[in-house]
Amino acid sequence: MDELQQNQALADLIQTFYHQGKAPATSTNYSWRNPAGEIIISRSGVDKSQFSPQDWMKVDLKGLPLPEFAHCKPSAETLIHCFLYAEFPDTKCILHSHSVAATVLSGLYLNQGAIAFADYEVIKGIRGHNTHDCTVKLPIVPNSQDMGELCDRLHPESLKNFGFLIARHGLYAWGDTIAEAKRHLEVWEFLLECEIALLKIQAK
Amino acid sequence: MDELQQNQALADLIQTFYHQGKAPATSTNYSWRNPAGEIIISRSGVDKSQFSPQDWMKVDLKGLPLPEFAHCKPSAETLIHCFLYAEFPDTKCILHSHSVAATVLSGLYLNQGAIAFADYEVIKGIRGHNTHDCTVKLPIVPNSQDMGELCDRLHPESLKNFGFLIARHGLYAWGDTIAEAKRHLEVWEFLLECEIALLKIQAK
Amino acid sequence: MDELQQNQALADLIQTFYHQGKAPATSTNYSWRNPAGEIIISRSGVDKSQFSPQDWMKVDLKGLPLPEFAHCKPSAETLIHCFLYAEFPDTKCILHSHSVAATVLSGLYLNQGAIAFADYEVIKGIRGHNTHDCTVKLPIVPNSQDMGELCDRLHPESLKNFGFLIARHGLYAWGDTIAEAKRHLEVWEFLLECEIALLKIQAK
Amino acid sequence: MDELQQNQALADLIQTFYHQGKAPATSTNYSWRNPAGEIIISRSGVDKSQFSPQDWMKVDLKGLPLPEFAHCKPSAETLIHCFLYAEFPDTKCILHSHSVAATVLSGLYLNQGAIAFADYEVIKGIRGHNTHDCTVKLPIVPNSQDMGELCDRLHPESLKNFGFLIARHGLYAWGDTIAEAKRHLEVWEFLLECEIALLKIQAK
Repeated sequence: MDELQQNQALADLIQTFYHQGKAPATSTNYSWRNPAGEIIISRSGVDKSQFSPQDWMKVDLKGLPLPEFAHCKPSAETLIHCFLYAEFPDTKCILHSHSVAATVLSGLYLNQGAIAFADYEVIKGIRGHNTHDCTVKLPIVPNSQDMGELCDRLHPESLKNFGFLIARHGLYAWGDTIAEAKRHLEVWEFLLECEIALLKIQAK
Repeated sequence: MDELQQNQALADLIQTFYHQGKAPATSTNYSWRNPAGEIIISRSGVDKSQFSPQDWMKVDLKGLPLPEFAHCKPSAETLIHCFLYAEFPDTKCILHSHSVAATVLSGLYLNQGAIAFADYEVIKGIRGHNTHDCTVKLPIVPNSQDMGELCDRLHPESLKNFGFLIARHGLYAWGDTIAEAKRHLEVWEFLLECEIALLKIQAK
Repeated sequence: MDELQQNQALADLIQTFYHQGKAPATSTNYSWRNPAGEIIISRSGVDKSQFSPQDWMKVDLKGLPLPEFAHCKPSAETLIHCFLYAEFPDTKCILHSHSVAATVLSGLYLNQGAIAFADYEVIKGIRGHNTHDCTVKLPIVPNSQDMGELCDRLHPESLKNFGFLIARHGLYAWGDTIAEAKRHLEVWEFLLECEIALLKIQAK
Repeated sequence: MDELQQNQALADLIQTFYHQGKAPATSTNYSWRNPAGEIIISRSGVDKSQFSPQDWMKVDLKGLPLPEFAHCKPSAETLIHCFLYAEFPDTKCILHSHSVAATVLSGLYLNQGAIAFADYEVIKGIRGHNTHDCTVKLPIVPNSQDMGELCDRLHPESLKNFGFLIARHGLYAWGDTIAEAKRHLEVWEFLLECEIALLKIQAK
């Protein structure tokens, strides 16, 4: 796929996320890196039910708009993307979701700093895992409107499973391809759905 | 967009609301104001899964059909729309939803007069809010079939966050553009979904 | 709409019901009456995700296939449709749904013989109701594979609100037009969704 | 339908399963047998939201790729399919789902070895059942990454109702036609949805 096709495919995926209830009220942001290493990121304030290829813009590694996009406003969370690309240089795509499960559980478990998931087959969807027979942790950091402060709370050693939560805000997930980033996002969202079901049953 | 396109776009949105479970059984009503200041409102009794541009009509500021629509019946809640346009003159669109979460929670919290939401990132979707670090209240009024009585229960100072609930009836949300009204509706519906999830978990 | 168009429109609605989770595993059945008074009913065993106009057949008032459909098998519940058309002669359409809420609640409340709903705005969607300020009852009968026995359990005076439940089986709803039958089905399904939400919250 | 049409129809069904939340994060696998007796099975690692006819491959009765597919990797669970085709020679299609309900309940009930369902009308969707008035059991086996070990845990006499669960992994269902396999999968998924609703209500 060339860049235009990639922009279209990822825009379609964002609309799918909206219809899955993962991107309400213009929330969420998304980016990918083209072969030239440029960061292509969603503009601020776009209704994700109508996200189109025109809603992408390019920023540099510090999150500043490239000259041809100087008139555009990048997502408020652009620096989180820059932080992740800097820490994990092979990363090619970063996705964000704002589901009810991610919002509610990130608030409930904030004091514990993470949610642990054990023995789920779907864990094999996380790169590097080839068995269900293990425990994986999804870290949670407090929310902040200061992205520098928020990124300081992200400890790279806790991020080896390609995802984290911001309290009452949502999930970030990433990967070395767009497909892998999507797969990681779906693993974590599915595990969060299972956890919230168990809590409703009071089986935990 | 011209008026015909706007009528089509908003009709499409209403069908989307139906498929999201927010407009069952011909419930709900919607309006917007064109540049001439006319109120374009949904007719009464239309199945929202099939809402089409032909299902709009025009009323004056008192809710009476304009002459060319004298044969049409406006929504039973037309006077709520007129009240809001009168109180908040910059308002250009008013949306209504009738979801399970809005219906159930508006009944449960009626005695408290409002539902409070704190520390949610999605609060930033409400105009005038640029941080999650606050509490917003969604007021609730008792239901009535007398629209004058119902509007008397609406205190403008409680409506500054562009939404309110009618008990066991649903949510109204509005904005200075159609996009803003949709965003406000999605903020409140999302917060209601989070609240009902917390109650099911018994975390509140 | 002529008969072919009506058959197509109702087939489309059935597919929508499938995607709403109301018609799993070839369950459910549907009928309408054309101006000649013939009963046009769904054939037995059709996957509702693919229900097409070819999946209708005609039966007489006793549920026997008309000659041109002698080779077709009508739905196992055909006699329920015949019973309702006989009891309520103005009825033009009968719909059935098999949702999780209808299945679970019809089992839970079977011993009480009905589920009562009070003060819901959506009650106005039932013909003859113009206020939320009332209580409506949805009767429940035990399930049976003997349709004569099952119909004997249906007391016409309890059916004045155009709906009833069969325990752990689902909902029937009807009306004097297809649109009214759909509206009645959506009223009852929405009320069942509210009830199950309240039970999960333990607010009842 | 010829083989190409069958491959297309089943690919479309897999995409529907994805959108029903039954196939997240490249999980799940599917197969059918053509009239020549060849097993046509889904390749490993495909995103089910985009499953296309090119994502099928052929394996022999031991699960080894046929020569023209020597370069392809079959699903990790291929041997489960081979086991079922060997035990139940009339089987023509095997489906798998990975829903929240199947994942959560297979973990909760693992120690009991099965989940029992009684008196549900939808039981009639399982071949050989013509009344709701009975109890059916859905067996559960512990998960394993060793397919030989996993199949050893499957006792054919417990599989007479065309389905079983693997703990925290999901559901397998099958039938003598693709339509029957789909119907069986939908019966079990619907029963699991009812069970999880009852547990949330604490009615069990």
